[in-house]
Amino acid sequence: MATEHIVKSFDEDLARLSDLVSRMGGLAENQLDKAIDALQTRDSALAEQVIEADTKIDHLQHEIEELALRMIALRQPMAADLRTIIAALKAASALERVGDYAKNIAKRSIAVAEVNSIGPVNTLSRLAGTVGDLLKTVLEAYARRDVAMARQVIEDDSQVDVLHTSLFRELLTYMMEDPRTIASGIHLLFVAKNLERVGDQATNIAENLLYIVEGGSGFYDRSKADVSSLVGTKLPARKD
Amino acid sequence: MATEHIVKSFDEDLARLSDLVSRMGGLAENQLDKAIDALQTRDSALAEQVIEADTKIDHLQHEIEELALRMIALRQPMAADLRTIIAALKAASALERVGDYAKNIAKRSIAVAEVNSIGPVNTLSRLAGTVGDLLKTVLEAYARRDVAMARQVIEDDSQVDVLHTSLFRELLTYMMEDPRTIASGIHLLFVAKNLERVGDQATNIAENLLYIVEGGSGFYDRSKADVSSLVGTKLPARKD
Repeated sequence: MATEHIVKSFDEDLARLSDLVSRMGGLAENQLDKAIDALQTRDSALAEQVIEADTKIDHLQHEIEELALRMIALRQPMAADLRTIIAALKAASALERVGDYAKNIAKRSIAVAEVNSIGPVNTLSRLAGTVGDLLKTVLEAYARRDVAMARQVIEDDSQVDVLHTSLFRELLTYMMEDPRTIASGIHLLFVAKNLERVGDQATNIAENLLYIVEGGSGFYDRSKADVSSLVGTKLPARKD
Repeated sequence: MATEHIVKSFDEDLARLSDLVSRMGGLAENQLDKAIDALQTRDSALAEQVIEADTKIDHLQHEIEELALRMIALRQPMAADLRTIIAALKAASALERVGDYAKNIAKRSIAVAEVNSIGPVNTLSRLAGTVGDLLKTVLEAYARRDVAMARQVIEDDSQVDVLHTSLFRELLTYMMEDPRTIASGIHLLFVAKNLERVGDQATNIAENLLYIVEGGSGFYDRSKADVSSLVGTKLPARKD
C-alpha cells in the first residue's frame, strides 16, 4: 500500500496550490502598484508593461485551475480539503479580476496622458493607497490563514466606499467647472471604479478565507471526512 | 450493489444542475430586460424591483455551488463529468455577474431619473438590444449544447464593442456641449460599460460551452474516465 506516499503527495499539492495563489497575489499587487504609478506619473511605457504582463496572471490562474482539477479528480478530497481547493479556485478568480482592473487602469492612464487632464487628485492617491493596503493585507492573511486580519480587511473595505464616493463628487465638480477636463475626468472615474472593485475582490478573498478556516470542520482539521458542513442541510445519505 | 441506482441518481443530479443554470440564466435575462426598461422609461419603482430581486440570482448560484460540491465530493466524477460540473460553476459565476450588472444599471437608472438628463440615446437602446440578444442566444446554446450557436455569440460580441465605442463618443459630445448633462452622462457611460461586460460574460459562457462539448473527450462521452484531456500535459501517473 502506498497510502502514506499518496497523503504526502497530496500535502505537497496543497502546498503548491497555496504557493501558486501567493505568487498570483504578488503579481496582482505589483501590477496594481505599477498601474497607479503609470497613471500618476503619466508614464505610458510603464502602462504598456502592465498591459502586457497581465497574461502572466492569467497563466497562473490557468495553472491553479489545472492543479485544482487534477487534485479533485485524482485525489477525490473531502470536506476541509475540498473546501481549501475550492477556496483557492475562488481566490485565483478574484486575483484574475484584480489583474484585469490593473490592466484597465493602465489603459486609462495612457488615455489620460493624451488628453487635457485634471491635475493630481489627492483623493485618488488616497483611494489607491487604501485599496493597495487592503490587497496586501488580505494576501498576508491568506498566506498565514489569519482570520483576524481577514476580518479587518472586510471592515476596512467601507473606507474604500467612502473615499470612492467623495472622489466621484470631486471629479464631477472639476468636470462641470471646466468641460475641457471631461474626457480625462471620465477616465479617472473609471479608474476610481476599478479601484473600488479591487477592494471588493480583497473582501471576497477575506470572506473566502473565513470560509476555509471557520466553515464547519475547519482548514486544519483534515481528518474529518464529513461533507455535511460543506454542503449545508440538503445533504443526502451517502449511498455506498 | 446499488451501482445502477447511484449512476441514475448522478444523471439526475447533472440534469438538475443544468436546470438550475437555465433558471439562473432566465432570471438574469429578465433582470437585465427590466433594468433597461427602468432606465428608458425612468421607472424607478421597476428599478427598485430589480435591485431587490438580485438576491434570487445569488441564492441560485449558492444552490448550484452546493449541488456541484456535493456531486464532486460524493460522486467523485472524472473527465467529462467533472468538466461539466466545473462549467456549470463557471456559468453560474458569469450569470451572477450579469445579475450584478443588471442591478447596477437599475441603480444608475434611479440616479439618471433624478438629474437633468440627456434625452433618449438611440445607440444605448441598440447596445442593450444587442447584448440582450447575445445573452438569450448563449443561454439557448448552453441548454441545447449547441456549439455553432456558441461560436456565433463569440463572433457577435465584437458588435458590442463597436457600439460601446460609438456610444462613448456620443455621450462625451453631449456632455461637452451641455455641462448640465454631465452627471447623467456619467451614469449612462457606466450603464454602457455594464452592458459591454454582460456581453463579455455571454462570451465566457460560450467559451465554457465549447470547453465542455469539445474539450478532449467531450461532453457526451461520459464513459471515458480519463482526466488527461482535462488537466493538460502535467498529469502525474496515478498512484493507486
